[in-house]
Amino acid sequence: MYRTHTCGELRKADEGKEVTLAGWVQTVRKFGSINFVDLRDRYGITQLLFGEELNGQLDENPLGREFVLQVKGRVSERSNKNPNLPTGEIEIKVLSFSILNKAVTPPFTIQDDTDGGDDLRMKYRYLDLRRNAVKKNLELRYAVNRAARNYLHEHDFMDLETPFLIKSTPEGARDFVVPSRMNAGQFYALPQSPQTFKQLLMVSGYDRYFQIVKCFRDEDLRADRQPEFTQIDCEMSFVQQEDILHMFEGMIKYIFKQVKGIDYTEKIERMSWEDAMWNFGNDKPDIRFGMKILNLKFPAYTFPQKENRSDLIDGVNFQVFDSAETVLAIAVPGSSETTRKDLDLLTEWVKRPQVGMKGLVYIRYNADGSLKSSIDKFYSEDRLLEIAKAADAHPGDLILMLAGTEERTRKAVSELRLEMGKRKGLRKETEYKLLWVLDFPLFEYAEEENRWVARHHPFTAPKPDHIEIMIQHNPAIEDPAHYLKHPYAGIKANAYDMVLNGNEIGGGSIRIFQRGLQEKMFEALGMTKEESMHKFGFLLGAFEYGAPPHGGIAFGFDRLCAILGGSESIRDFIAFPKNNSGRDVMLDAPATIDDRQLAELSIKLDIEKK
Amino acid sequence: MYRTHTCGELRKADEGKEVTLAGWVQTVRKFGSINFVDLRDRYGITQLLFGEELNGQLDENPLGREFVLQVKGRVSERSNKNPNLPTGEIEIKVLSFSILNKAVTPPFTIQDDTDGGDDLRMKYRYLDLRRNAVKKNLELRYAVNRAARNYLHEHDFMDLETPFLIKSTPEGARDFVVPSRMNAGQFYALPQSPQTFKQLLMVSGYDRYFQIVKCFRDEDLRADRQPEFTQIDCEMSFVQQEDILHMFEGMIKYIFKQVKGIDYTEKIERMSWEDAMWNFGNDKPDIRFGMKILNLKFPAYTFPQKENRSDLIDGVNFQVFDSAETVLAIAVPGSSETTRKDLDLLTEWVKRPQVGMKGLVYIRYNADGSLKSSIDKFYSEDRLLEIAKAADAHPGDLILMLAGTEERTRKAVSELRLEMGKRKGLRKETEYKLLWVLDFPLFEYAEEENRWVARHHPFTAPKPDHIEIMIQHNPAIEDPAHYLKHPYAGIKANAYDMVLNGNEIGGGSIRIFQRGLQEKMFEALGMTKEESMHKFGFLLGAFEYGAPPHGGIAFGFDRLCAILGGSESIRDFIAFPKNNSGRDVMLDAPATIDDRQLAELSIKLDIEKK
Repeated sequence: MYRTHTCGELRKADEGKEVTLAGWVQTVRKFGSINFVDLRDRYGITQLLFGEELNGQLDENPLGREFVLQVKGRVSERSNKNPNLPTGEIEIKVLSFSILNKAVTPPFTIQDDTDGGDDLRMKYRYLDLRRNAVKKNLELRYAVNRAARNYLHEHDFMDLETPFLIKSTPEGARDFVVPSRMNAGQFYALPQSPQTFKQLLMVSGYDRYFQIVKCFRDEDLRADRQPEFTQIDCEMSFVQQEDILHMFEGMIKYIFKQVKGIDYTEKIERMSWEDAMWNFGNDKPDIRFGMKILNLKFPAYTFPQKENRSDLIDGVNFQVFDSAETVLAIAVPGSSETTRKDLDLLTEWVKRPQVGMKGLVYIRYNADGSLKSSIDKFYSEDRLLEIAKAADAHPGDLILMLAGTEERTRKAVSELRLEMGKRKGLRKETEYKLLWVLDFPLFEYAEEENRWVARHHPFTAPKPDHIEIMIQHNPAIEDPAHYLKHPYAGIKANAYDMVLNGNEIGGGSIRIFQRGLQEKMFEALGMTKEESMHKFGFLLGAFEYGAPPHGGIAFGFDRLCAILGGSESIRDFIAFPKNNSGRDVMLDAPATIDDRQLAELSIKLDIEKK
Repeated sequence: MYRTHTCGELRKADEGKEVTLAGWVQTVRKFGSINFVDLRDRYGITQLLFGEELNGQLDENPLGREFVLQVKGRVSERSNKNPNLPTGEIEIKVLSFSILNKAVTPPFTIQDDTDGGDDLRMKYRYLDLRRNAVKKNLELRYAVNRAARNYLHEHDFMDLETPFLIKSTPEGARDFVVPSRMNAGQFYALPQSPQTFKQLLMVSGYDRYFQIVKCFRDEDLRADRQPEFTQIDCEMSFVQQEDILHMFEGMIKYIFKQVKGIDYTEKIERMSWEDAMWNFGNDKPDIRFGMKILNLKFPAYTFPQKENRSDLIDGVNFQVFDSAETVLAIAVPGSSETTRKDLDLLTEWVKRPQVGMKGLVYIRYNADGSLKSSIDKFYSEDRLLEIAKAADAHPGDLILMLAGTEERTRKAVSELRLEMGKRKGLRKETEYKLLWVLDFPLFEYAEEENRWVARHHPFTAPKPDHIEIMIQHNPAIEDPAHYLKHPYAGIKANAYDMVLNGNEIGGGSIRIFQRGLQEKMFEALGMTKEESMHKFGFLLGAFEYGAPPHGGIAFGFDRLCAILGGSESIRDFIAFPKNNSGRDVMLDAPATIDDRQLAELSIKLDIEKK
């Protein structure tokens, strides 16, 4: 070893010891005729004192930032202690030193607050990774990895590796493919998830499987998506939904405890997909704060069980509301005194193409109990008060109302709620609120193809009492305009998502385990028998040999780490991430390959066509 | 849960309990008017007793092999106990049952000794995985994984994930490549190992890295190679070779203890590459037994330090030896009475094309001290005795001698030694002997291209006192016939292999960490400056910003598991392996992909050319 101790290790109790340290030069400070050097490694920083007698040697071998240095010296108490540093009570009186490697000046300083911008950071990722801020993220990532493994091990889960070179079965996202040299004209695919393999392992009787595993999706990268990402992937046999929720509540609480020191003792809330959409406008609500939606008006078919409150807005001939499919409102607490200018800016905000509303209606519910609104012309103060009360507003609150088509308006009000929550400081980074969203629809309607697609994936089971509806009815949609009236639209899935602070961190389902039902599902998704046999024949076959009831869940490991690390961006929690064009700018990959390689793979480029 | 207990859990102490079990029907035995069923799950087998009263229900719902069954019943003591089964003292008196899923008759029985042949096993791998023999292997694999992780964690190693979509830098083996849709005409490569990334992590200061990670090599598959395989990949900073050997001796001993219950307390032997070749004829000797090679004759340049014993065979005008480049012998203990017929068969064995010798010379050193040989015509008994003694033979042994060209003869004697060791029962499955092989040559000579190639990989450092030889000399080989006289031929690497029972289970090296030396290495391997910058510019760049001295090792995880499991084949230790054509016969992958997929990737097939 080039060292006897690390740079984070020595304390006052070590005084007098002769030690050898190795690390990077963080700073060099000249102080009269002596020099102080902060030496850094993974474990901390230790101050080195170079006395006058070393000046000759230092002149010949000057030290610079990020030089790799080995020093022998004696631990001594510092006169000028640094209480912010674990090693701050001591310094090393250097006896001799050796420069192990020099460094040219880095393109940005290796400090928490100077990262030189995203492009530079990514190009010199190996330097960026030296910054404490990034190191902390990767340490947290390893801690989450370790905690998850330990919990799952204690609960009899086995880490079983599934293959990476598999078969392309494009359903949903695009596969990355790998040309096979030995099988000319054929391709492997990289797995979008180990879904079918973990199900086969259940058929094989392995009972409790997990893997922390890379998955691949060739999607157009929205901000904060990566072509390769990591899942904590789990599957269990002989379970019902409740067993899985219970097991993985345990896991996430264990991670909170081990990684963050947080005792998450409260019961994890549960919410149906319908209630999530009804109250929050999306399927992964941030429940750290309220501001539930007041559903004034909406198409009857979307929430057949829910009460319409159009009585609150009808009858005054206000065209904007009368002509709208949907009218929704939220009450922003303590915001009645928002200035006219800020309301104008907020109106601009909802009119941006990303939100896409035509305008914003507001009602000030003033602290004195009076009401003032942008629609005073149409609504009396009494009627405004009724609306405010229905929206659960109190004096001092501001009610914001949106009107338009159902899907867009609901999405907009959801975004408006999150934005206002953020502005009001209600989305605290240090507060964690977990939520299960349950009872998702099994199918979504794909308009262009006039067919059903799987909302989760084709292996998700319907709720037990919806199986018969699925089997008894023809999936064909004869009346596209009223697809919601098709019996399939009402089938709910035995699926669940775990949501943390408004982010989906995990999702799963109880699976289909009967060949007949799985075939019906493939048929419902518009696959011919030939197609389903070509793509999933192995799974249908496996279901004939005694498949047990089973289900599972997969957690987005990158996202989970980011949220636990208090960040919105997964990139900083990945050692070597790719940019939004799927490029690794450090490696400069992807790149062209040799003609010889192409020839061996029996492919050629076909770029002209584009 | 579909069960209250597993099938491996209930004991006599549970008598009287009402329990619910779920699992697979292993066997159904009718015994008069009652039925016994062995119910199997991952944890064991429990006997179920179906009384007369259930016969009606069983007639309507007959049970078959591999049906998935749920039963409620009461634990009772068995009259006819089975001492071979942990649950053998009890049975479940079934109160009610439910068939969770039926099974058609499997193509082979789910038992230890009936696997239906390799093709069938692989096609129905999900059934094969149910067999206890295969399950034990995967359980062992997980135990090794877990032990390695725990050891490395305790020693401050961090699991850091490196990317799978990287850049193609073909050096040695072929890369699998992945066409990039978003970057038309460009490709990612799948990593052959995380080598450069783990080195960058050292540059970044992470100090102790590990990963249990999939790697990919597009090689023509010899028996027992897989296109995707798993490594325990490790790297450390501020270390010398001795530190790494010490750390990973610790790991392997910890794995022995945790997984096999074996206290491997002996010192792990070390051997130079030269001594391994000299004494055993290969670089991964099985040292569970002796039978060291007697080097009678060999070309002087191969082992310049070693003593030639051609005095023992010269001067009798025996053309076979006189004309041979190399003559080697081994003494097989207790085999002097091998029959003439068996010796003829052994001669055929060495003449097979895989071994490629022209013949075999033997000397019987009889128990009575007399000697008898196939070359009696040339050598007197006294001379035979001298040879026998030099070969360390004792009365009762059989000396076998091979003659021919150096490389082939040494390889042949190595194989002959292993074969005889096996026949004599000296390679015991239950005995484990670890060995470090050290001081490998840094370079190998590539005859076709008349250049040096890296024996390990281009990032391996030369021995410290050989660095100057490398820097001072031109790598160009001006006299190909005498390439061994080139100074580069004598440069030794700071590299080490860990060998277990004659198998290389791990290998690594101290790395180059200086840009200048790394550039010299690339030059030595025949790369132009442009090439090395295109392929490894990021690494050369990183070395300029303060790279610490570092080194590492990678263990072949599949192979390690196989050996610990007492098997020669890695396939049975991989859940879903590929066959020798790189195919997954269960999935039927690789397979053709849609034209749409090809078009999106800007490639087309080019099969005609072949």
